[in-house]
Amino acid sequence: MILHMKPKATEKDIEKVIDKIKELGYETDISRGIESTIIGIKGDARKLDENLFLEIPVVEKVFRVSKKWKEVSREFHPDNTVVDVNGKVKIGEGFTIIAGPCAIESRDQLFRTAEIVKKAGADILRGGAFKPRTSSYDFQGLGPKGIEYLAQAREEFEIPVVTELLDRTDIELFKAYEIDIYQIGARNCQNFRLLKALGDLDRPILFKRGRAVDVEEFLNAAEYIYSGNCSGKGNHKVILCERGTIKGEKDISRNIPDIPGMIYMKQESHLPIIADPSHSAGYRERVPQLSRSLTAAGIDGLIIEAHYNPENALCDGQQSLSSKELKETIKICREIHYLINNKYK
Amino acid sequence: MILHMKPKATEKDIEKVIDKIKELGYETDISRGIESTIIGIKGDARKLDENLFLEIPVVEKVFRVSKKWKEVSREFHPDNTVVDVNGKVKIGEGFTIIAGPCAIESRDQLFRTAEIVKKAGADILRGGAFKPRTSSYDFQGLGPKGIEYLAQAREEFEIPVVTELLDRTDIELFKAYEIDIYQIGARNCQNFRLLKALGDLDRPILFKRGRAVDVEEFLNAAEYIYSGNCSGKGNHKVILCERGTIKGEKDISRNIPDIPGMIYMKQESHLPIIADPSHSAGYRERVPQLSRSLTAAGIDGLIIEAHYNPENALCDGQQSLSSKELKETIKICREIHYLINNKYK
Amino acid sequence: MILHMKPKATEKDIEKVIDKIKELGYETDISRGIESTIIGIKGDARKLDENLFLEIPVVEKVFRVSKKWKEVSREFHPDNTVVDVNGKVKIGEGFTIIAGPCAIESRDQLFRTAEIVKKAGADILRGGAFKPRTSSYDFQGLGPKGIEYLAQAREEFEIPVVTELLDRTDIELFKAYEIDIYQIGARNCQNFRLLKALGDLDRPILFKRGRAVDVEEFLNAAEYIYSGNCSGKGNHKVILCERGTIKGEKDISRNIPDIPGMIYMKQESHLPIIADPSHSAGYRERVPQLSRSLTAAGIDGLIIEAHYNPENALCDGQQSLSSKELKETIKICREIHYLINNKYK
Amino acid sequence: MILHMKPKATEKDIEKVIDKIKELGYETDISRGIESTIIGIKGDARKLDENLFLEIPVVEKVFRVSKKWKEVSREFHPDNTVVDVNGKVKIGEGFTIIAGPCAIESRDQLFRTAEIVKKAGADILRGGAFKPRTSSYDFQGLGPKGIEYLAQAREEFEIPVVTELLDRTDIELFKAYEIDIYQIGARNCQNFRLLKALGDLDRPILFKRGRAVDVEEFLNAAEYIYSGNCSGKGNHKVILCERGTIKGEKDISRNIPDIPGMIYMKQESHLPIIADPSHSAGYRERVPQLSRSLTAAGIDGLIIEAHYNPENALCDGQQSLSSKELKETIKICREIHYLINNKYK
Repeated sequence: MILHMKPKATEKDIEKVIDKIKELGYETDISRGIESTIIGIKGDARKLDENLFLEIPVVEKVFRVSKKWKEVSREFHPDNTVVDVNGKVKIGEGFTIIAGPCAIESRDQLFRTAEIVKKAGADILRGGAFKPRTSSYDFQGLGPKGIEYLAQAREEFEIPVVTELLDRTDIELFKAYEIDIYQIGARNCQNFRLLKALGDLDRPILFKRGRAVDVEEFLNAAEYIYSGNCSGKGNHKVILCERGTIKGEKDISRNIPDIPGMIYMKQESHLPIIADPSHSAGYRERVPQLSRSLTAAGIDGLIIEAHYNPENALCDGQQSLSSKELKETIKICREIHYLINNKYK
Repeated sequence: MILHMKPKATEKDIEKVIDKIKELGYETDISRGIESTIIGIKGDARKLDENLFLEIPVVEKVFRVSKKWKEVSREFHPDNTVVDVNGKVKIGEGFTIIAGPCAIESRDQLFRTAEIVKKAGADILRGGAFKPRTSSYDFQGLGPKGIEYLAQAREEFEIPVVTELLDRTDIELFKAYEIDIYQIGARNCQNFRLLKALGDLDRPILFKRGRAVDVEEFLNAAEYIYSGNCSGKGNHKVILCERGTIKGEKDISRNIPDIPGMIYMKQESHLPIIADPSHSAGYRERVPQLSRSLTAAGIDGLIIEAHYNPENALCDGQQSLSSKELKETIKICREIHYLINNKYK
Repeated sequence: MILHMKPKATEKDIEKVIDKIKELGYETDISRGIESTIIGIKGDARKLDENLFLEIPVVEKVFRVSKKWKEVSREFHPDNTVVDVNGKVKIGEGFTIIAGPCAIESRDQLFRTAEIVKKAGADILRGGAFKPRTSSYDFQGLGPKGIEYLAQAREEFEIPVVTELLDRTDIELFKAYEIDIYQIGARNCQNFRLLKALGDLDRPILFKRGRAVDVEEFLNAAEYIYSGNCSGKGNHKVILCERGTIKGEKDISRNIPDIPGMIYMKQESHLPIIADPSHSAGYRERVPQLSRSLTAAGIDGLIIEAHYNPENALCDGQQSLSSKELKETIKICREIHYLINNKYK
Repeated sequence: MILHMKPKATEKDIEKVIDKIKELGYETDISRGIESTIIGIKGDARKLDENLFLEIPVVEKVFRVSKKWKEVSREFHPDNTVVDVNGKVKIGEGFTIIAGPCAIESRDQLFRTAEIVKKAGADILRGGAFKPRTSSYDFQGLGPKGIEYLAQAREEFEIPVVTELLDRTDIELFKAYEIDIYQIGARNCQNFRLLKALGDLDRPILFKRGRAVDVEEFLNAAEYIYSGNCSGKGNHKVILCERGTIKGEKDISRNIPDIPGMIYMKQESHLPIIADPSHSAGYRERVPQLSRSLTAAGIDGLIIEAHYNPENALCDGQQSLSSKELKETIKICREIHYLINNKYK
């Protein structure tokens, strides 16, 4: 961290700031220029809050050099992290496809959709039992019954499953049904109490970036789960997910994905990263093209909404792919992934 | 709700759509134009999800006429709601000032700050015990100990208190210490499980609008607490709070408030609304001016961060007002409120 | 256009609205529901401004059914438009690569860069002579001298050229040097006076979408050039360009591209569309991946910044590709384009 | 400017960077820490583009200490600038009200509106003759005829006038009719060629901040006009105008104003600043409250749309105030301005 003092700062002011830094347990490097003084703070500045200095009137600016998210960074762990899903799928190795309905509506709907998902070549089945809905009047999901159906589909189709965890109190239920991956939705991206609880689990976490949560904030949030520095032991099975960060334009898209940010995260963090073309595009007719685009950015997989009968879905039907569309999308995305990772690596 | 059919929709297509509407329990009004057909859906469309129709290929567009947030609207309840805080303060009547430290750091810090808050003429004391922080390495608050200090300050200074509730599991603790107002922070604005739990309480809720949560979404979220339609009995003691909706520019502001949106909410909802100049401005030197500006928009109060010694605060010190600044800000804001509400009403 | 009247609107109110519509030369379709009345306006509503109705107190809402941008839509012209660049390149057929320096710094720099651009297999050379810079203290381009060098490079390397037109008064200069494509920069996206002047030319226009200009606004702006309805004859040689619509995060990206919006434009407009990975990514190390991602979305080409010596560029050097990077990026993007357009068409 | 070198930078790398800085004519201050080296660049860094260093691979980060907009800053000119409008009105002294129709529709409409504007106590009359409209099918203004009417109204009502200048080529026309203030609209905020031309005039410029143009960019743009450093002599009669920087939510507002940013500009720049509640609110029923709010932030005036008959305006009627609304709004805003500037100064 670098503090740039105001030109009017006196020697006494500077001494006071240096004392404050020393009290916090850090060493300093002072550079006295003609116009102003620069104080460099040495050591691990991760735990230093820049606000502690910004509130001092003689400090002009505070520049942070190192990132606060240290354990999820490549500096800390240069190799790609591969998340093993119950020994069946490895996320971060090859290209992983997760597909299924937005919401589980009935046993029949889930099973019929699971069948097309499996046939289309997906690796993991998704399906929401607890649905966070903007309006309290909208379908809120089947709840525990949905979790039960999902566990049944998992056995029937021999496919790992992922579903959204809304609240810490459901962890026991998720454990009881041996849910393979716990999804944390965009609206819970900065629900720190929940993130701390996840840091104590040994289950893969599919961690969605929230709307208007910037890359810095998202990686700091991932650090809550991964490092366990302020609770738990830390859970290293974190899969990042970009689902669209900026609200889209009505009738055109739902959430515009931050693709440059996604590329940055792949470069600077060792965690695997997947993307959600369905919640981004928001309209079925743009999901296949967006899936290709996200894949070509160099990520590790996709999570796609599919439905055996999209026109009658209770939730997000207008963005769900049919059997045929899903199959084609998976095929071409796997080819793009192969092209960029093998031919040009 | 109005469905605009595609020009190519056949009579049979239209019949199918009408059947679907009837199955959902609604009546229709059909207008067959030369180029296309318009289907009006009659009755309470609150519970109708427009996505159910958007996914039908022959439907061109779906226009929602009535709002989904019905019970928090003035249509449902034309008069202003006044939230009574334990018989001591009425939010929505006159102009209410809430002030105090961002985080409770120690008993001493809280008490010294409570003293200046009381002397400055504030009505309610704020102080965070559970702090949601972007980084896990930052100070997370004193937890239950902070709640204990806050309850002590409440007795000592005879002032109601408000503090942030992060998670349902803390409700018992809040009840035990008789916290007067439960604050729901911006990051929990769409934590629907938590909102549902609040719908079952009889305590005032200070409900902050989240970043990038639009007005429609925010009022839908308030409806979760107020109407209790999908859980609980409904809690009518909801106070809306604008704390800045759009991320500000580095070194200039923290969260730009949506003042036109705030004016709209005051017009269209009967709930009282207050604003948070401190988290919006982000820098102490802009908090007084922003406080005036928010007040003049015609709201019911402010929540302001203050600290007896801002330069050494552990959290958000650079946005906390000192004793003198707080006093002056309260005085001028009360005058502005009087001016616009009495002289020009 | 559909007008939804307020429930309190009387028969007389409705008559007055119908009269106003008739005065404007349109027919109506009335649907009188139990609760409220809907007025459908028949005919070409392109020229109708919804604000004319929104200002009437008894009108609740106005819904626009058809788009205002008619001539650039596929409804008007279903086939893809192919823009012929002086008989040498066809944009909209195959995959077109435009590359070159951000700013022309000297004859030598332009020629050395043109050489690597040509060798890398690009189709068109770019180079800015008039540079719109955020600060007046930054390098503003070589001006007419730069145009002269560009015209020389065009002859020397037998490659069409594109450069930015800042102002109508430079059109004569551009004509004199036979510039092949006139680029309109993001900041001039809604400079309507300039757009009207372009409607009278017979030159290809590379039209960049501005920051925070939404898809609707962008296509309306393109209609100014294409249709010539309010000046000129209309210029059909318009190439749309997405260069990043949302400001990126410091140190991570410069302008986040709206990829779902780009996919929508390709579907709903017949104009060719290219993208600018350099101004989006903003950092060289993310340009290759973003180039792949944009290509896989299904567009017609890319415009990439390259420099023979990026470390000493006077403008945007940190986002310019070197010779080797450019060559590889072009190669893989052409393969992705082939894959999605031939194998899966 | 401070350069933070990468830990791996060798002595030779550092020497090369220092040489580059010296070549550019600057001195350096070097601080060699244990982990990394910091290079401070001394002297006026206004003319230094940080990108020149960012593109050097061994440079980790570049921090800018001083602002690029120097002449518009209070550092350069501590006192408030007061813009004299033809000896009749002083903007920056007291509280200035500009009011009038969005577009001039006819001589009669302008004169009838001018009459209510004058009676309501406004200081300056506004009226658009050249209208930048999103769609080419919308009313584009009366053009030169409108300017003629405006000049007539100016004489008839003895009130200075302001109108929008769209293009450099209209400057002669504006001079001929002695337009008092030239307005530069939001969409031309970064039309640098136009800004350069303004730097050579001796007329007051009402300079609107564009959508998504951040405070830094806006002040840099103002510097183009004020300093004349890259053309002209510099025009010191610049009035900044906030008209809403962030696109609002449909049916709620049009452009959310950046009020904290406005407060910052008032603090850090010496230029007068006014705000436009009409284009921000977008709906007449929210203009009075927003006017109060903007005023209380501590600015120098407002520009308000008014119409003698808002329900039949050809442009932006739904945001225009009637005679009575305008009068009341002006009265209360003047009282708020007096309150905050006199009683509490």
